[in-house]
Amino acid sequence: MNPAQIIIKKRDRESLSHEEIKYFISSYINGDIENYQMSAMLMAILLNGMSEKEIFWLTREYIDSGITLKFPESNGRCIDKHSTGGVGDKLSLMIGPIAAECGVMVPTISGRGLGHTGGTLDKLESIPGFQTQISLGRFQKIVRENNFAIIGQSDNMVPADRMIYSLRDVTGTVESIPLITASIMSKKIASGIDGLVIDLKVGNGAFIGTMEHARLLAESMSKIAKDFDKKIIINFTDMNAPLGRYIGNAVEVIEAIEFLKGNMEPDLKEVTYKLVADMLILAGVSKNFRQAEIMIDQVIENGHAFDRLRKGIELQHGNPAVIEDYSLLPQPKHTKEIYAHRTGYIKNINSKSIGYALIEVKAGRKHVDDTIDHAAGLRLFTKVGGKIIKGEKVAELYYDNDQGNKAAKDIENCFEYSRDKISTTGRLLGIHK
Amino acid sequence: MNPAQIIIKKRDRESLSHEEIKYFISSYINGDIENYQMSAMLMAILLNGMSEKEIFWLTREYIDSGITLKFPESNGRCIDKHSTGGVGDKLSLMIGPIAAECGVMVPTISGRGLGHTGGTLDKLESIPGFQTQISLGRFQKIVRENNFAIIGQSDNMVPADRMIYSLRDVTGTVESIPLITASIMSKKIASGIDGLVIDLKVGNGAFIGTMEHARLLAESMSKIAKDFDKKIIINFTDMNAPLGRYIGNAVEVIEAIEFLKGNMEPDLKEVTYKLVADMLILAGVSKNFRQAEIMIDQVIENGHAFDRLRKGIELQHGNPAVIEDYSLLPQPKHTKEIYAHRTGYIKNINSKSIGYALIEVKAGRKHVDDTIDHAAGLRLFTKVGGKIIKGEKVAELYYDNDQGNKAAKDIENCFEYSRDKISTTGRLLGIHK
Repeated sequence: MNPAQIIIKKRDRESLSHEEIKYFISSYINGDIENYQMSAMLMAILLNGMSEKEIFWLTREYIDSGITLKFPESNGRCIDKHSTGGVGDKLSLMIGPIAAECGVMVPTISGRGLGHTGGTLDKLESIPGFQTQISLGRFQKIVRENNFAIIGQSDNMVPADRMIYSLRDVTGTVESIPLITASIMSKKIASGIDGLVIDLKVGNGAFIGTMEHARLLAESMSKIAKDFDKKIIINFTDMNAPLGRYIGNAVEVIEAIEFLKGNMEPDLKEVTYKLVADMLILAGVSKNFRQAEIMIDQVIENGHAFDRLRKGIELQHGNPAVIEDYSLLPQPKHTKEIYAHRTGYIKNINSKSIGYALIEVKAGRKHVDDTIDHAAGLRLFTKVGGKIIKGEKVAELYYDNDQGNKAAKDIENCFEYSRDKISTTGRLLGIHK
Repeated sequence: MNPAQIIIKKRDRESLSHEEIKYFISSYINGDIENYQMSAMLMAILLNGMSEKEIFWLTREYIDSGITLKFPESNGRCIDKHSTGGVGDKLSLMIGPIAAECGVMVPTISGRGLGHTGGTLDKLESIPGFQTQISLGRFQKIVRENNFAIIGQSDNMVPADRMIYSLRDVTGTVESIPLITASIMSKKIASGIDGLVIDLKVGNGAFIGTMEHARLLAESMSKIAKDFDKKIIINFTDMNAPLGRYIGNAVEVIEAIEFLKGNMEPDLKEVTYKLVADMLILAGVSKNFRQAEIMIDQVIENGHAFDRLRKGIELQHGNPAVIEDYSLLPQPKHTKEIYAHRTGYIKNINSKSIGYALIEVKAGRKHVDDTIDHAAGLRLFTKVGGKIIKGEKVAELYYDNDQGNKAAKDIENCFEYSRDKISTTGRLLGIHK
């Protein structure tokens, strides 16, 4: 087979065969196909699309490029949650412990923050000692012992996706439904799950801006899940404004711990309960949302979900004392208060711009190899719909470099005001059927 | 500027600005933009197209990536001919000397054969001693002295096109009208011409298969020529069957020399006279085809065009004695006769398949760094429309490796027969208006 001929087939809108996709991916991995050939292929896929069969084969070849995990004892109860990335999204930190305590096995392989979105690994690494790069053997052991663990992508799992993802990032080929589908589904399927709950975020703070685009991605992921015989529920959730009251790393860990202590911000509660309930339903633990909600309330109230988090931190070599003593987490040197520049109701808090402003104080990263200041971040004193008087404090910025003034100014402009009262409708925009 | 952002603009069908194109090309040349980013951009251009303005800027940046030649003394008479590549196309070898003798300056920068098509440089290099890689200073001097010279692309002329072309070749991004336009026009404009005659070949032996595609390319080249204030005439010519009676390298040199001695194969005469006439008209030397034809007949009959070729060979360090003594050219070790496998009229001689069959005996090359056997080639004993009796000799293959039987078998299958008489309509398919 000839790489250019296969690129030309896709360029000319023909379907690729399983053999061609297998050859292209395996030759890329072993270096026979060059980056410049892969990037031309990626652009052709982005612009010309792929059939369900092609996406299935692509996902298959991504998975087969590395090792896969298995939890044969799960009996259908191994369910993960995947979020497509947002601002202030600390959901994994709560969902893992809660679902685990309800009897679900949750083997989460997570990512780092990039651009305006945060990453679960960066948040966890705020905890002194916490290890996100542990062996897959140890990872499986922790999942078996505590029902949940959260680690970073390992070099030997789905290497094709990792290599192709970094190429997509610099060649304008990220926003392709077939490529996003194969990337997400391959990693989740390789981690040994029986089923998957997707939190598909939509809005300016998400990678997917419109419901139309979100529905196409959902349809594609749903088909591929079925092709691999995996159960799936896909939720569309609103990511125009940041989730919760804190954005950053250490501050989001605190917010997650508080959540498990029962101090829940309404939007966080709404999304967390829905996603965990879907996991319980897929696992066969609950029959419906009402049953799941009762279970979740219970494991929060009796402190068992909180205990799971403590144990999880301990098992991954973090200092479990942080969950009682937040002063053990990285502390910011400076705090800058941000005030409302007019009176009115908060119409929106532009989460994409907040994400980018926080990169300036190193709460996030522009390039994959940038370092993070785990103490940097933002606390919101108001949310969408909130009434604000000019001069009132709307947020507090935590930072430790010389970009505080610039970031604070940018964040001030992220608040959109309205003269009229704003009615909020919640974060849940529906599920994919 | 950010390379990925510029790729995304083109991916999303937006027009690129002059600054963006300038940045992308110059950064690619100096290594700041990687091959994999350029190939993603090339695929986006191929699939989403470019406006006339974008193609103009791209051509401008190609030209400005290297040095340019000037013939200020030409007074409008510096006219080149460009062919888009075919099988048996030795036209440049006749056109240069004829047009030169008629008073046109012809600074031809030519290419090598690749795939099924032959290259003028390979043909010329059959002549012992002939140098196609000479300095641009010497090239200009020869053009001034003898009115024509033919050399290979120099490293410091239009380097952007050379780098991008080799990338296009391996990434399935050759067949793009904006990219083909910029590639052809930049090289010709950089060589200092006042006007250009295009021989746009159409058919299975050409890169352009259909008249529809040919018209789009002609329209694009015609616009860019006008934008650069260059005169242009574009001829569409038929490239389904090979041109002339010989295909190869040394054998095509012989056919070209015979042509200048007055022994003209009708299809070669038809196309050569038309293209030279167009050059004379653009140069202001002739008013119309009839006038031009008289001039061409004259310079052939009086042997002056022949003398120009002899002098041209001498000026480029070739042995001029070859034009009287063909035994000084590379001689094939083996000859294999190919016979008609049925009785009838020749409906077509598949030039693309002939081109590929001749690669097997090294008359052509599959990869840019393959070596050529200059003596290998094919002689046709019949042409389209010819009447043939089963068992009659239709061709003779010249070769010097162990692929002769295989190539001869493949060539035998290139002849298509018809029971009914075939009427031929000539090679000229019209001009672009």
